[in-house]
Amino acid sequence: MEPFGARLRRAMDERGPLCVGIDPHASLLAEWGLNDDVAGLERFSRTVVEAMADRVAVLKPQSAFFERFGSRGVAVLETTVQEARAAGALVVMDAKRGDIGSTMAAYAESFLHKDAPLFSDALTVSPYLGYGSLKPAVDLARESGAGLFVLALTSNPEGGEVQHAVRGDGRSVGATMLAHLAAENAGEEPLGSFGAVVGATLGDLSSYDLGINGPLLAPGIGAQGATPADLPRVFGAALRNVVPNVSRGVLRHGPDVTALRTAADRFAVEIRTAVTAS
Amino acid sequence: MEPFGARLRRAMDERGPLCVGIDPHASLLAEWGLNDDVAGLERFSRTVVEAMADRVAVLKPQSAFFERFGSRGVAVLETTVQEARAAGALVVMDAKRGDIGSTMAAYAESFLHKDAPLFSDALTVSPYLGYGSLKPAVDLARESGAGLFVLALTSNPEGGEVQHAVRGDGRSVGATMLAHLAAENAGEEPLGSFGAVVGATLGDLSSYDLGINGPLLAPGIGAQGATPADLPRVFGAALRNVVPNVSRGVLRHGPDVTALRTAADRFAVEIRTAVTAS
Repeated sequence: MEPFGARLRRAMDERGPLCVGIDPHASLLAEWGLNDDVAGLERFSRTVVEAMADRVAVLKPQSAFFERFGSRGVAVLETTVQEARAAGALVVMDAKRGDIGSTMAAYAESFLHKDAPLFSDALTVSPYLGYGSLKPAVDLARESGAGLFVLALTSNPEGGEVQHAVRGDGRSVGATMLAHLAAENAGEEPLGSFGAVVGATLGDLSSYDLGINGPLLAPGIGAQGATPADLPRVFGAALRNVVPNVSRGVLRHGPDVTALRTAADRFAVEIRTAVTAS
Repeated sequence: MEPFGARLRRAMDERGPLCVGIDPHASLLAEWGLNDDVAGLERFSRTVVEAMADRVAVLKPQSAFFERFGSRGVAVLETTVQEARAAGALVVMDAKRGDIGSTMAAYAESFLHKDAPLFSDALTVSPYLGYGSLKPAVDLARESGAGLFVLALTSNPEGGEVQHAVRGDGRSVGATMLAHLAAENAGEEPLGSFGAVVGATLGDLSSYDLGINGPLLAPGIGAQGATPADLPRVFGAALRNVVPNVSRGVLRHGPDVTALRTAADRFAVEIRTAVTAS
């Protein structure tokens, strides 16, 4: 399969740079008039896929909300991923996995092996064990044409105690992750497959080198306070590689499929306008 | 339910301080003459539970090796956890989850809510998003009588770039996690429920304050190079709170149940001897 970075570039060019979350938390299920059970989960996910998968570039299921129902929830996640991909969306599995050695390899196989029931176009991973611990996932992603999004600089205030800590070479942990990713993506065209998660609500990021030649997944648009118009200021020259994520800002318009589509289309237009104008 | 720390203290006193991993990776399945499929996974896990759950203090399933088979693998994990607990072992789910806000709460519900199919006595979590991001899991663990093991200082060499980075107050990230846990466990008797993962192969840890009044899960005994006799040197005064984990060192003796038991009993005796002698 063509590398994730190339597929993502094309999808964002064609459909607009937008990632919609599939976050079936209990409060949203209730707002949609669904029960907080596996049937409600299935109905919710199927509706989002039906409304979105043929038009948005990326869908991002939040694994935790499926795991909450155990293996039966994971079975719904499998169907969701498969149907979303079949309908033309790229799927970024938001599972934030991270481990070492053969265990990291097993997580990679779970989400990045082409025959896995949960095979996704990309996976979010957590680097507390060091960027190098993610190597089995990097290797399998390359083999499968998939990608990764490594947690780097997140928007929650508690994250600073880890991400802003400084290493012996004077760089912060967050900047170190960005540097590793830049090396991973070196020379890739049109876009590398190894991205970073960078909070869209962080304000000015000009002290960081965001030029990693890979995608920057930016949660926090809509309900979490940032707007599409904020993106140029936050991301500067890296703007064209930003994958803005909207979850609640779209999902709260459900369960009506037309209303969901209208909300997503509006975000896609606003984001494209912000990107083009800058 | 009685708090995890108290239950763990009693289990380690009665059964010996030993945690055996349930790590069904492909190479072990092959060594046991099992196929690398869901049936092999089920057979492997059932055998470990049958051999161990009535005698070792803690069993630690490695979630990745179950997730590799998608929802059907997770269904085997559910059975494994439930049968291990029913037979008297404490179960530490090694899933290294970590997220923020309602997503972290959903992971907590997945493993620490008493009615969840994967309810475990404790869960490993990853703090790249900051210790504070784990609060929903801390809260639910307290409510359920469960515990957490927070990644702090791991034995893999790549981990240093995050864990040894230094914060504004002069403490490293790893030391910061230990300090948070010490605060969490303050005043708890006989042992707090909020532990740390600390690599047993790290050599001298005397520059760290391991006195967190909580358990220290120490992977790396046996196959990864450390021996029970190394524990006093590595852990010093915190030795009595160490939960040494052996995985391959026991599992390679299967599938024969008697051989597995003999191996586990030997480790339990060696560890108890090392702890008592120091």
